[in-house]
Amino acid sequence: MQDLTRALLAGDPRALARAITLVEEGGEAGREVTRATFTRAGSAYVVGVTGVPGAGKSTLVDGLAVLYRKAGERVGVVAVDPSSAFSGGALLGDRIRMQRHCSDPGVFIRSMATRQHLGGLAEATPAVVDLLDAAGHTRILIETVGVGQDEIEVVESSDTVAVALVPGLGDDIQAIKAGILEIADVFVINKSDREGADRLQQELESLMSLSERGAGEWVPPIVRTVATEGKGLDELRQAIEAHAADPASRRRRQERRRAAALRRLRLLLERGLVERLGACLPLEQRLEALADQMARRHRDPYSAAEEILSEVRVTARRGKSG
Amino acid sequence: MQDLTRALLAGDPRALARAITLVEEGGEAGREVTRATFTRAGSAYVVGVTGVPGAGKSTLVDGLAVLYRKAGERVGVVAVDPSSAFSGGALLGDRIRMQRHCSDPGVFIRSMATRQHLGGLAEATPAVVDLLDAAGHTRILIETVGVGQDEIEVVESSDTVAVALVPGLGDDIQAIKAGILEIADVFVINKSDREGADRLQQELESLMSLSERGAGEWVPPIVRTVATEGKGLDELRQAIEAHAADPASRRRRQERRRAAALRRLRLLLERGLVERLGACLPLEQRLEALADQMARRHRDPYSAAEEILSEVRVTARRGKSG
Repeated sequence: MQDLTRALLAGDPRALARAITLVEEGGEAGREVTRATFTRAGSAYVVGVTGVPGAGKSTLVDGLAVLYRKAGERVGVVAVDPSSAFSGGALLGDRIRMQRHCSDPGVFIRSMATRQHLGGLAEATPAVVDLLDAAGHTRILIETVGVGQDEIEVVESSDTVAVALVPGLGDDIQAIKAGILEIADVFVINKSDREGADRLQQELESLMSLSERGAGEWVPPIVRTVATEGKGLDELRQAIEAHAADPASRRRRQERRRAAALRRLRLLLERGLVERLGACLPLEQRLEALADQMARRHRDPYSAAEEILSEVRVTARRGKSG
Repeated sequence: MQDLTRALLAGDPRALARAITLVEEGGEAGREVTRATFTRAGSAYVVGVTGVPGAGKSTLVDGLAVLYRKAGERVGVVAVDPSSAFSGGALLGDRIRMQRHCSDPGVFIRSMATRQHLGGLAEATPAVVDLLDAAGHTRILIETVGVGQDEIEVVESSDTVAVALVPGLGDDIQAIKAGILEIADVFVINKSDREGADRLQQELESLMSLSERGAGEWVPPIVRTVATEGKGLDELRQAIEAHAADPASRRRRQERRRAAALRRLRLLLERGLVERLGACLPLEQRLEALADQMARRHRDPYSAAEEILSEVRVTARRGKSG
C-alpha cells in the first residue's frame, strides 16, 4: 500500500489506475489510499462540464484537454455516466474520441458508471478527482451526462462549472435551463452553427437578467462553440480562466469547497453510525422484516424507523454530552 | 390534523394539497400525515414515465391521464422536475398543457422541484405518491425530467416504468439508453413520425437482445407514439396493462416495492441516528470546523469522520447487543 501511494504521488499512471479502482470499490483499501493522499491534493483546478444529453460535452472536454496540453498542463478527465452495470460503464464513443490522447502520458482518462458505486457518485467522484489531483494533474475535467440531482451535486464541487446547451432541443429545455442556471459559471452554446442559436442565447440572457445578483458578482459569459470543428474552444478556455481569476468567484469557490467537504463528511458520519448500529443489533434482518411490513402497508416508515431507534442509545464518551 | 387526514382519506383535493405541502416541508406535521395515512395507501397502480429531455414526457402523461379518466379511474400526476428554487418549481409549459384537466376533479396534478426538499426527491416523491394513493387515486403517473441517479431511483419504485425516447437525439443517447434499459418495462418511441424512428427501434431491439433474461421473463415491448396527435397512446396504455397483468412482472413488482421500502427505511434510520448524535454533541459546529480543515487539505475525510465517531458510543438497550 505504501508503494502504491508513493508511486501515485510520483505520478505513475498505473498506480493511479489501481488506486482509483480501490476507491471505486469502496473498501478499506480505498479509504487507506485516500487517507494517505488526501492532504497532498488540492492544487488542481477542476472544471465541471454538464448539460443536456446531446450537447456534445465529450467533444468539448476533449477540445479543452488538447488546449490544456498545449499549455503544458497535465490533464485528468473523469467521465461520469449514468449507464448501468449492463453497459459496462465506459462509453465506446468516449473511448474512440479520446483515443488520440492514448499515447500522451500527460492525459489520464477515467469513465465512471453510476451504479457501480456503493455510496453513489456523490462519494466516489470527489475521491477520484482527489487522486488525479494528488498524482500531479493540474487541470481536471469532470464530464457528467445527465442533469439529475446527484450529477448537479458532483459538478457543483468543481471550481468552474461550464453548462453546455444546444439549439433546438425542444420542450424540456426550459426546465433544464432553470435547473442548471444557478450552478453555471460559464454557458456554452455548442453546435452554434445550428438554427436557433441566436434565440437560445437571447433566452439565456433574459433568464439571467431575472436572477438576483449582488454588485461585483460574476456574470456567466455565454460562449458559442462548434466543438467538432474546434471553433470557440479557445474562447471557452479564456472564459474559464477569467472565472478562475475573478475575485468574487474565488470567494465563492472556497465556500463551494467547504460545502462539498461538509456533504462528504456527513455522508461518512451517517454510514459510520449505521455500521456501529449494525455491530450491536442484527440490523439487516430487522430492516428486511420491517421493509416487508412497509411494502405490505402494515407499517408506516416512521414507526418502523422508530422501532429500531428506540432500541438504541447514542451517547458521547468522555462526558462530552451537553 | 385529524380533520386533515380524515378529509384527505375522503378524497378532498384541498386537504390533499395541504398534506402534500406538509410532507414536502419535511417537518413533524408531514411525518404525522404520513403516519396517519400510510397503511391506507397501496392500492393505486403507479406508472413512472422517464426518459431523455425533449422526449415529450408531459404530453405522454397527459394523454395517458385522458385515457384513464375515460375508463373512470381517478388520476394523480406527480411531475418531478430538476429545476431549482429559481424557477419556482412548476413548469409553465406543464401547467398550460395540463389546464384541460383543471375543471376535472378526477385529476390531481402536482409539480415538485428538486431543490426544495430536505431529503431530496428520494424521500419526498414516494411520500407524495402515498398521499395521492390514500386519497383514492387509482392511477398515479410519475413524470421525471432527467436521467440522473435519483430520478432513476424515483421511477424504479413505480409498478410499471415507461421509458420515452425520440429519434435523432445525438451522441449521448447511447449512454442514456444503456442507463435506463434495465429499468424499462415498456419503451416508447415518441415523435415516431420523425426520421430515424426505425433505426432507433432496431438499436433498442439489438440492445435488448444483449441483455440476459430468464425464461418467462417480461420482454419490454416497444410502442411507437406521436403523443401530440394522440397516436399510439392507446397501444401504450395496453402495453402498461399487459405488464401489470404479467405474472413474472408481478413478482418483480413486489420485490421493487420491498426494495423501495428498504431504501426509505435506511434513509430514516441514518437521519435518526445523526439527530441523536446531535443531541449529545455540539455536532454542527464540529462538522463545520472539520469540513473547513478538509477544504484546506489539513485533514482527510475519514480521519475527520473517525474523530467524531470515536467520541460516540452506540449501544443497544435492553441487553440486545450481540
